[in-house]
Amino acid sequence: MHIVDVNSQILEENSRLAEINRKMFAEQNIYVANFMSAPGAGKTTLLEKTIKKMQHLFKISVIEGDLQTDLDAERIKNLNVPAHQITTGTVCHLDARMVHNALHEFDIIGQELLFIENVGNLVCPADFDLGENLKVMIFSVVEGADKPQKYPVMFHNVDAVILNKMDLIEYSDVDLDNLIQNIREINTVAPIFPVSCKDGSGIDDWVNWLSTKIK
Amino acid sequence: MHIVDVNSQILEENSRLAEINRKMFAEQNIYVANFMSAPGAGKTTLLEKTIKKMQHLFKISVIEGDLQTDLDAERIKNLNVPAHQITTGTVCHLDARMVHNALHEFDIIGQELLFIENVGNLVCPADFDLGENLKVMIFSVVEGADKPQKYPVMFHNVDAVILNKMDLIEYSDVDLDNLIQNIREINTVAPIFPVSCKDGSGIDDWVNWLSTKIK
Repeated sequence: MHIVDVNSQILEENSRLAEINRKMFAEQNIYVANFMSAPGAGKTTLLEKTIKKMQHLFKISVIEGDLQTDLDAERIKNLNVPAHQITTGTVCHLDARMVHNALHEFDIIGQELLFIENVGNLVCPADFDLGENLKVMIFSVVEGADKPQKYPVMFHNVDAVILNKMDLIEYSDVDLDNLIQNIREINTVAPIFPVSCKDGSGIDDWVNWLSTKIK
Repeated sequence: MHIVDVNSQILEENSRLAEINRKMFAEQNIYVANFMSAPGAGKTTLLEKTIKKMQHLFKISVIEGDLQTDLDAERIKNLNVPAHQITTGTVCHLDARMVHNALHEFDIIGQELLFIENVGNLVCPADFDLGENLKVMIFSVVEGADKPQKYPVMFHNVDAVILNKMDLIEYSDVDLDNLIQNIREINTVAPIFPVSCKDGSGIDDWVNWLSTKIK
């Protein structure tokens, strides 16, 4: 019970800080999207594709979360987009305080769209509100159609699901209809975008939808 | 600092319980392998393939860890192997206490080989000793060659690395030599087994190696 109490205190404090972040984002008129996925589902590659399609329309910044390395932030900077790396050490998710502290070092005034790429993990990031407007889940279709039932909190809490690596599905045993049906049992409303970052299919649908969310 | 103190207390208590588990496993002469991976890397499928090759040689039991559902335990029971499901709720890894408690309900006396399938997560399971003899990591090659540097604790702490979904690598941008080189920068000694659970390639090498570890 002690551990549960500590966790609920941590989540309560996180919600308080997330509200401060949310208020600040609203005051600055910055739309914030939090990208979450298992390791290797293609978050950074999807970000690159998304930025290339949107950077002529919006002023974009990126906060990258990783245990170690600034490899992802360097990839984003190559697109001439400001990027800030948070390295979490052994912590398996971003939290509102990490994002808040990052904003002391990373100026987003005048920006219109902030992407936050979370640590690759299908469990804990779902519990930690960062003050974002949109929670986006990227799921690699070759991870299997049974995953919505096995990681229900993540699938339930997100506002959009992007099914990446569609180019690989024909070589796998995963059935797309079955996967979508399993997602719908957990989340009845989030739009689902099948995409391939490799061949570019579906990216426009996702980008057009995202663009309509931003004032 | 408060959070760090709580975490170190949790890990200390976990190590104490893991030693109790380890002693009990040794007294019972049961070899224990802990399977860890990101979600959807193929832990359960590899377990099925491994069990089919080894169940005529050893008395095998399985403990399954998942947030929700007993889908994986049911798959294992279909092989006529005793399986026990631990559902962790929101906890993103197994710990020594969960395994210890499971053994009050799940009789492994007379068994020779116990597989523990951890929650799908490349971060936290690496920190929690369960009292096992062998930590095995299953990595889906299509997750990308940069992952050893991004999830170094897991890659560092394991005794064997299984590179699964080799059947998909030719359709991806992942370079096997580059991936292996990146693993070797983090872990110089663990044997690396490229396998495909789909076409069966490489499974015999892994099973033969594992068999030599068991007295």
